[in-house]
Parts: sequence; C-alpha cells; structure tokens
Amino acid sequence: MQHRLWEHTQTLRRLSPLVHNITNYVVMNNTANALLAAGASPIMSHALEEAEDMVSLCQALVINIGTLSTTWVRAMRKAAAQAQLLSKPWVLDPVGAGATPYRDTVLQGLLSFRPTIIRGNASEIMALARFNETRTKGVDSTAQSDEALLAAQFLQRQYGSVICISGATDIILAGNRTIRLTNGAALMTKVTGLGCTASALIAAFCAITTDHAEAVAAAMALLSISAEIAAESSGGPGSLQLELLDKLYNISETEFLERIRLDEQQ
Amino acid sequence: MQHRLWEHTQTLRRLSPLVHNITNYVVMNNTANALLAAGASPIMSHALEEAEDMVSLCQALVINIGTLSTTWVRAMRKAAAQAQLLSKPWVLDPVGAGATPYRDTVLQGLLSFRPTIIRGNASEIMALARFNETRTKGVDSTAQSDEALLAAQFLQRQYGSVICISGATDIILAGNRTIRLTNGAALMTKVTGLGCTASALIAAFCAITTDHAEAVAAAMALLSISAEIAAESSGGPGSLQLELLDKLYNISETEFLERIRLDEQQ
Amino acid sequence: MQHRLWEHTQTLRRLSPLVHNITNYVVMNNTANALLAAGASPIMSHALEEAEDMVSLCQALVINIGTLSTTWVRAMRKAAAQAQLLSKPWVLDPVGAGATPYRDTVLQGLLSFRPTIIRGNASEIMALARFNETRTKGVDSTAQSDEALLAAQFLQRQYGSVICISGATDIILAGNRTIRLTNGAALMTKVTGLGCTASALIAAFCAITTDHAEAVAAAMALLSISAEIAAESSGGPGSLQLELLDKLYNISETEFLERIRLDEQQ
Repeated sequence: MQHRLWEHTQTLRRLSPLVHNITNYVVMNNTANALLAAGASPIMSHALEEAEDMVSLCQALVINIGTLSTTWVRAMRKAAAQAQLLSKPWVLDPVGAGATPYRDTVLQGLLSFRPTIIRGNASEIMALARFNETRTKGVDSTAQSDEALLAAQFLQRQYGSVICISGATDIILAGNRTIRLTNGAALMTKVTGLGCTASALIAAFCAITTDHAEAVAAAMALLSISAEIAAESSGGPGSLQLELLDKLYNISETEFLERIRLDEQQ
Repeated sequence: MQHRLWEHTQTLRRLSPLVHNITNYVVMNNTANALLAAGASPIMSHALEEAEDMVSLCQALVINIGTLSTTWVRAMRKAAAQAQLLSKPWVLDPVGAGATPYRDTVLQGLLSFRPTIIRGNASEIMALARFNETRTKGVDSTAQSDEALLAAQFLQRQYGSVICISGATDIILAGNRTIRLTNGAALMTKVTGLGCTASALIAAFCAITTDHAEAVAAAMALLSISAEIAAESSGGPGSLQLELLDKLYNISETEFLERIRLDEQQ
Repeated sequence: MQHRLWEHTQTLRRLSPLVHNITNYVVMNNTANALLAAGASPIMSHALEEAEDMVSLCQALVINIGTLSTTWVRAMRKAAAQAQLLSKPWVLDPVGAGATPYRDTVLQGLLSFRPTIIRGNASEIMALARFNETRTKGVDSTAQSDEALLAAQFLQRQYGSVICISGATDIILAGNRTIRLTNGAALMTKVTGLGCTASALIAAFCAITTDHAEAVAAAMALLSISAEIAAESSGGPGSLQLELLDKLYNISETEFLERIRLDEQQ
C-alpha cells in the first residue's frame, strides 16, 4: 500500500482538485496554504447564498466546527446536504465535540448527512459516539484508547463513515480494514490547527481516489511524515509551521517511502 | 518612471497612511503584515456600525470579497458609498468573480460605486465584464489573454477605474496608458492570498499619490520584486511567505531598480 | 520579583490552563500559537449559544474588540458577565478605543463587567478614561505620557482593574504598585497583533496566580524578552513573527533573568 499512497500524492498534484472548506477562523490561512503546498486548490466560503453552488463546483468538502455561529451552522447544513445529494465526498472535523451542549447539537445535525469521513482526536470521537444513548452503557469501564476504538466502530456502523482517530498513532477504520500510522512529532501539538490541516488534506485525497481508506491514509502519511522531517530541523513551533509547508511542497519519494510506518489489519 | 516608483515606496514609508481593509478571513493576518512591512498602517474592520467612520478616518479603502456574508456585504456597500462620497481612493478585489451567481450579484452592486482601481486575475476581470450583456457578444472567439485585455478596456470605460490584470505579466490600464510588469516568481501561486496583498498595497500607494496608474505600478513592482528575491532563497511556499514580508520591509533601492522589468505604451 | 516571574512561566507550562479567547480575526492564529508556545491551552469561540459554557470550562477569558459585529458584541457581553459571576479573571483589550463612536459604546458596555485587567497602548487607555465626562476636564494641558498614567489611575479606581499601558516602556498599575518594564524591540511594531498576543498571555498568567500584578508583569516580560532575543536574529518582521513563537517555546531561565529590565515603585 505504501507505494500506492505515494502515487496518490502525485495524482493530487497532477489533478489539483478544488476543495471547499467551511472551517474555523483560526486555521483558514494555514489550511489554505497546506492544500496549495500539497497541490490542491482551496476554496474558503461560508455564505449561505452560495453554499450549494460551491459544493457543486468543488470535488470535495470539509466541514470543521471550530468557530461556530448560527448562520455558519445553516451554511454547513446546506453544504453537507448538497454534498450528500451529489454524492461528493465530505469530511467532518468535530472540533471540541463534547465541550458544550451547543457543539453537540450542531454535530448531531451534521451527522445526519452521513459524512464520508470523520476525523478527530480520541476524545472528540468518543464524544460523538456518546450522543447515542444506547451506546453509552457499559463504556465507562473500558480504557480510553479502547473506548475510542469502540466509539469509532460504532460511528462507522451508524453513519457508514470512514473514521480517523488522530494522535501519536493515527488509526483509520474503514469496513473491515484497520490502518495504523505512527509517523509525526511531539512538537506538532504546539502548533494550532494541524488536525484541521489533516482533515482538509483528507478531503483533497478523497477527491482523487474512490478508495477512501487509502485517501485518509495518504493524507495522514503525507502530513505526519512532512511534519516529522520538518520538526527535526525546527527550532520551535513557529519554524515547524513554516517548514511543514515547505516539506508538504517538496517531499521526495525517498523521504516518503523510507519514513512511512504503516500497519494494516483486515 | 522606475525612479518615481521607488520614490513612491519611500513616500509610503514616510507618510504611513491608514488603509481600511474589508477583506477575507483567510488573508487578514498576512495583508496586515504586508501593509506594515511596506510602511502603511492597516485597519481591519467590517462592522456596519462604524463602516462610514472608518472610511472617514482612513486615506484609502480595500474591498475584497473573498469570504462573503449578508451583513458583510452591507458593510462593503456602505464603505464604498462613503469612499465615493468623500472622493477617497478605493480598490475592488473581485475574488472568485464568476464562480457563483451570488458573487456576481454582490460585485455588480459594488461596481455601481465606481471603484478607483479594480485588481483581479484574467478570469476575474473577464467575469466582471461579462455581467454586461452587450459586452458578451463576440467575445467567445478571442484568445483568453486578448479577452482579458478587452474586458479590462470595457471596465475602464464603463466605471472610470484603473484596471490591473495580475499574473505572470501584470497589465495596468489607465486612460491611454498600458503598463506591463514581468517581475515575480512561479512559487507565488503556492502561497494563499498574494493577490489580496497586491490589492491592499495598491490602496496604500493610492493614498500617497494621485497618479493612480503609478500607484498601481509601484505596488505591483514592490510586491513582485520582493517576492522574486524572496523566492530565490526560499525552500518552499512556507519560507516564501515569511521572506516576502522581510523583503517588503528591507528592500533596497539597488534591488528595486536593478530588477524592475517594466514596459509602458501610450 | 524577577525570579518569581520566571517561576510563573514554569507554572504556566506545568498547569497549561484553558484560556478562552473572543478576539479579532486578524490575530487568531498567532494568538493561539503564542498561547501554545508559552504552554497554555487556547480556545477560540464566539458563539452566543456557548459563550457561558466556554467561560465555565476555562480558567481565564480575553475579550479583544479588534473586529466587531452586532452578534459578537452580544457574545462578548455574555462571556464577560459570566466571568464576573464566576469570579474568573478576564482581560479587556480595547483595540482602537476612541477611533469610532461605535467602539466607544461597546467598550463602555464591557467596562461595566469590571475587567480584571485592561491592557492597551497609551492612546487606547486615554480614550477609555475619556468616556467619563468628569475625567476629561483639565486633561488637555498634560503631556501624553502623563495623561496616559492619569487615565490608568482613573480606570483603576473606577473599575478596580489592574491596568497595563504597553509601549516601549510597559507600565503596570495595581493598587499602590507601579511596575515598569523596558524590554522589547522596535521591530515589534511592524508585526500585527503583538499587543493582542500580550493580552492573551496576560490572561494565561492570571489563570495560574492570584497576584494579578505579577501575572501581568510575567506575561509582558516573557513576550518582550522573547521578542527582544528574536529580533536580534531576525531579517525583518516576517522572521520576527516566527522566531518569537520559537523563543516563547524555548526561552531559558538564563535568557529571561539576564535580560529582564524591571523597576517597581510602591
């Protein structure tokens, strides 16, 4: 699979798909730059008046709930509905799931449009699954990493989504496949919005292959290997943010294939 | 003219004009930093309640439609009307013109306030001209670069604006003058929002000289020469974004005058 | 006090408090990254629907009025009221106070929730005090730096806030204490939003010590010493922004204690 993932990165550069982002204010600039560096074409728009038109124009959609407001939520729902209608891949990034009742209400609404991919950290994935009352019972006693995996399996069954739990080990659940990636660097947690970047790259790869498990794996591998290389020469989180963009742009096949640490179970 | 353009960059640093920006979320930070690095004083505000006051305070206005919403459009219209009323220079950046009907409706409304300058890429300039039905006829058969030039000439006649078509060659149309600039670097297309930066710098230069053709040329030359120098030492788009800000701040007369590639026809 | 300020920076890293930011679009990314680099955990949210819940979750709040709108102002008021109710420290950053009547109206409303800290530059602090009519009389004849100090003393008495006037010399007024800090670098004025970063760091330190005068001094010292070191190796404002984040992350005790220039009067 490693070689196919590299081929996907080359396809992304060649096809340069349009990716529509309804994402939070904090990360918009970095997300757009990461998509450009990886070879995709970002569009950022949240106007209700053009939500459907933008989804129609683009090859994939990301909905990231980092910074919410009443009108943005309406645009998110309209865009997600249009993506579902047109069978275009869309990625849900449930930033801060579980933090406030408002966030959870918004997320429940968005889940009804059956996201193609859901990417979050372990606590967000667990919070998403916890909405469902029958799911909650008996979960309290399990360890957190196991709980996240059970939550992901539940979400996968319930919504038909491919699930990505990101962290020191990224876990991708798709049908019977479980893919684990262990690239990355601890310094990544000191740069805001790299999870959001991951979700945007996932959307870009979903635009160029119908194998969504591989699309997620390609995105997570590209980001975490690039960050791993960048972190080695970075003097801190400021440099990492910059050098990550450079590396997303100029990573070589050798760098990608020598570093990738991927494990698949079926 | 080359020496006068350099003098304008020095005047900009000396006078440090206030530039009011109603611009998109993606580029706000970089636009503010580029204005500061070049010597101007940026103000970012979109509140309807202070739109007119801000225009009255500032020496120039930029309206950039990258990320729209109903209330922002009201503020844009109010600010543009106030700039027209007070005869202050204002720059329209028609991001994504032609992409959705909503964008085109918003742009038609803004054009009625007769922007001092319109800056866009070839496809945006063509989309703006295409709103006018009588203009559309017979255009289909012309080549794209010619069409962009015809579109610019049309917009110039219709709204009395100076037009800047930016690209590998930047073309500035002002009355009978046509100025072409060929500085820049291919890597610029991998950094989000450098077109938006160009529009903001144009507004800054329009605040310090009434020769708007030269103001546009000075802005485009400063940006593209700085980016050209920055790109030579950049390892990728992340570095370019940073080194461009440094160079906007510390570009020397020699660097500016030795590199500028400008051609004028009258 | 210098050693205690350094200890506060270590406590901040250890406790990593949640800091809720309702701040402007221009600086959100850098503010979040500065908080992360210094060891805090930023949350950015402005939704009315979760304003109170977010304040309840977090250990401190920043309200920065850089980019206003009607709905944001409602969220700011709700969050400030909740912070006051729960006795959580909150910092008011009165960006552009005095620039427009709208800004002043919004600020008067926010002051009624008695900010724990107010941080602004001299002109903003003077504008805040000028709202109060009885205060205005007789001020016109005083020099600007004296006027800022008088304004700060007035605000302190009126609202019970600790006041920080930031500039080449940062002045902190708390009860009978007046603390002056003279670290920093001139290049800081060419990077957008470092004042906003200061306010966010102040909130972070208020979350880990109840001595708010020291919290403000620790934040201003950490930021200005880090920027001073970063500026020495920076080629311009682009590099400064990046190297400042690196230095906030990796500043050493020796760097901090050898450079700090602090003076206290009681």
